[in-house]
Formats: sequence, C-alpha cells, structure tokens
Amino acid sequence: MNQVEKRNQLITEWILEAGEKIKDSFKETIQVEQKTNRNDLVTEMDKKTEKQLTENIQQYFPGERIFAEESNNKDIQDLSGIVWIIDPIDGTLNFVKQQNDFAIMVAVYEDGIGQMSYIYDVMKGELYTAIKDKGVSCNGQPIEKAQDIALENGLVAISSPLLSGDNDAVRKIGRKSNGVRMVGSAGLETVYASTGRIVAYIAASLAPWDIAAGKLIAEELGLVYTQHNGRKVDLLQKNPVIVATPTAHETIVEMLTQKV
Amino acid sequence: MNQVEKRNQLITEWILEAGEKIKDSFKETIQVEQKTNRNDLVTEMDKKTEKQLTENIQQYFPGERIFAEESNNKDIQDLSGIVWIIDPIDGTLNFVKQQNDFAIMVAVYEDGIGQMSYIYDVMKGELYTAIKDKGVSCNGQPIEKAQDIALENGLVAISSPLLSGDNDAVRKIGRKSNGVRMVGSAGLETVYASTGRIVAYIAASLAPWDIAAGKLIAEELGLVYTQHNGRKVDLLQKNPVIVATPTAHETIVEMLTQKV
Repeated sequence: MNQVEKRNQLITEWILEAGEKIKDSFKETIQVEQKTNRNDLVTEMDKKTEKQLTENIQQYFPGERIFAEESNNKDIQDLSGIVWIIDPIDGTLNFVKQQNDFAIMVAVYEDGIGQMSYIYDVMKGELYTAIKDKGVSCNGQPIEKAQDIALENGLVAISSPLLSGDNDAVRKIGRKSNGVRMVGSAGLETVYASTGRIVAYIAASLAPWDIAAGKLIAEELGLVYTQHNGRKVDLLQKNPVIVATPTAHETIVEMLTQKV
Repeated sequence: MNQVEKRNQLITEWILEAGEKIKDSFKETIQVEQKTNRNDLVTEMDKKTEKQLTENIQQYFPGERIFAEESNNKDIQDLSGIVWIIDPIDGTLNFVKQQNDFAIMVAVYEDGIGQMSYIYDVMKGELYTAIKDKGVSCNGQPIEKAQDIALENGLVAISSPLLSGDNDAVRKIGRKSNGVRMVGSAGLETVYASTGRIVAYIAASLAPWDIAAGKLIAEELGLVYTQHNGRKVDLLQKNPVIVATPTAHETIVEMLTQKV
C-alpha cells in the first residue's frame, strides 16, 4: 500500500469532520431503531456517518472494498487486497443513553494485515492513530509501549453481558485483578488497555468492525490480541476476545480455558 | 446554617485549588500504601488534600467538626451540629492506576441533614454543587432533574466487588438493564445516575465519606438513595447502597431483597 501519508491525512480529516456532525446531532432528538435485540441499536447518526465515510473512500480510493457495520456487506468473503473496516459509532448504547464514551473506528487492512487504524473518542476529542510498524499516536503525540503488568496488579475491563452472565471463570478473573471497569465501547476499552489504564479487556463476542482498528493499535503497543482460547481472531466473523499485556494474557487464557 | 453564599465561595476555591495540586502531582511518582487490603489504597495526595481541606475549615469555621476518610475520626459518634464529611480522593485505585475518573468530595451536614455538597471530577474539570432545596449545578450551570426511567430502559452501574461476587440477584439486575457500566468512583457513579447517564448505581459497602456528598446531589435531582433493603442509610457506618430513579429503585430493592 503506498501513499500512507496522504491516506492518513484524508482519513484524519474525514473522522474529525464526522465527529463534529455527531456532536451537532445532540441538539436534535436521536432517532433509534432496534437491530437484533433491545440492546443492539442503530441510530440515524450511525447510518449517516457510515454513508459519508463510504462516499469519501469511494471518491478517493475507487475500487477498494469496504466492510462496515451498518451495511454488513455480505459480499466480503475474504480479506484479499485492500479492505476498509468501519464502525461508524462504536458504543451505540452509550451514544444513545449517555452522549459519551463512544468512538468512530476506521481501519485499512491489506491481505488481512492491519496497515492503518483510527479510534476517535468523539467527546474527549482524542484521536488514536496506528500505522503498522510505526507505533501509535494520540492527536499526533506518540504513545509509549504499554508496560507488561500482571492481572493482579491492574484493573480489567469485562463486557457487561459476560460479567452479568453465568461464567464463573470471568468473575474469578475480576476478583484476581485490582477491580473491574466497564466502559461499554470495545474501541475505547482496547485503547485503555493499550495505553495502560487497564491491563486487559475481555469481551464475549466482537464483530470484525469492533476488532479491526483496536487490534492494530493494541499490537503496535505490545499487547496480545486473541480469542479466549489464545487463538488468532478471525476478521470474517464474531470472536470472543482478550486484549491484554503479555503476562495478563497468559493468566486470562489459562483461567478461561480451564473454566476454574 | 447561615452565610451559605460565603461558604459556597470558599469551598469552591478550596476544591479547585486542591484539584490543581493533584494534577501537578502526576509529574512526580505516586507514593502508594495499602490500608485494609491490596485494593484499599492511600497515597500522599489523599493525605495532603485532606490535611489542606481540614486546615482551611479550621481556619474559617473553627469548632466545626470534620469527619474525613484518611483521619477516620473516631470521635464522631453522632451528627449533631455542623459536620463536614470529606473524601479527599474518591476512587484512589483509579487515581493510582488510571490518573483519571476520581473525585474530591466535600459535604456540609447539619444535625444529620445535608446542606451543601460538592463532587469534583478533577480530570474533566467538572464541579457538581448541591445546595439543599436549591438544586444542583455543574460549573455554575443548573442541572435538570433526572427523568424517572425504568431499569429496563437504562444503563446501571454496579460496583466491581458486587458484580464479581456470588450475588445472583445483582447479575439478574445487570441483565434486566440495557447494560452494566463501572467507573470505580462512588462519587462519579452517583453523579452519572443523578444526571441521567445511568438509571442506578448499586454498591456493596460505602463509607460515610463515599455517601455524604452524592446523597444530597442525588436527592436534589429527584433520585432515591437508600440501603439495599430500601431503608435510610446510616452516615455513621458502612452501608450497602442503591442510588436510582424512583422507578428503577423500586425494581432493584425488590430484586435484591427477594434474592430472586
């Protein structure tokens, strides 16, 4: 993939502009629809943001494929060539209920490998950018690699359905840590793990667009990003996910797979 | 209690000044000590902040009693007269691990009734102020009363030890809601319930200084603040706490007391 700089500049502009439109939308009433269940929501702003990003990509990079949450492109059966993976609003429940703690996520993959990725915490105005092998920055400031802190010396994020469910191992992981925190946005929780606020994030079921941008950010900062059994995630389907420091990752995989 | 305006002005100054000192402290290494267990921490900044607030109160309001977390004043056996209730840093684990999502909390009670209270989200720069019968403001802007939203139509905060433990009823409450969020600061979670970001906050065991400021803020905005069994909290000891909209409160008390 060439012209990384040019792409980076364009994508950054598109995301910041989309963020402004989302903030403006709070002046109006948010229109909400249910998707698969009462906690799986989509708003006009998810659709508008995705449409705008898609149009931008088609204008500047015609022919490149797009894999995005709200269109849920059924034609994406493989990740060959360049594929854009987009979640226009990650944390839609937070967007609707809190008007806070949601993110725009964009990733550019080539032959299944993350090349560039973006997580924008709209309300904090923090744009995290990862370029493969070049590290991660937040609003242009480089981020240091995460320290390899053990589960028992850090906070851990666990997704709400997972910790509210019947999984004893997950509760044990919570008790082994210093405490559980839950933000409700896979992207922001991955950023928090990547920047050392927490040592791990564990989720029951993340879609490709929940994973793609965060995975590159996490890996560039030295974290491990896998399924619960320690295997690689599959970006063509939903995955149970762990993002963690190497040491915490080892402990968590052991505790989840032994079902102790 | 007279001179509410003068008190309000002084307390606001003291808290903003304390917040600046806490932010400055991030330039140095944080010195941490364990209290009762590995997740009950105290730092130099907790002690310094409490000492400074105590000195300010003693200078301007000599003779008024102070009930504060780090001094854990054993002489406070009743709440007669004016009592200041202070948590210099609520969410010390977040302060140490995240440098984010912690609060300075100050409350002035008279004969057991909250008169004025303050929760300062230091990193966001948001100071919530409640004056009895006069409502709540954030940085001087009045906050509207919370809407009475039901548990099944909102997010809920549950404390980490409670949801990671063996309480089936609490997990059921999590599943009945739209989802669980966990910030790790009783003060901020009470603010989030009071301002409508979540419909309830449930904690296993809060001390008087975790409760005092938030209780007045919550009640001024129309929320209900009780123990898990629906009884009034006792500000001389630890309490299992629910802060919730009236409708969500009724549902949660029922679910917690039936142990369904």
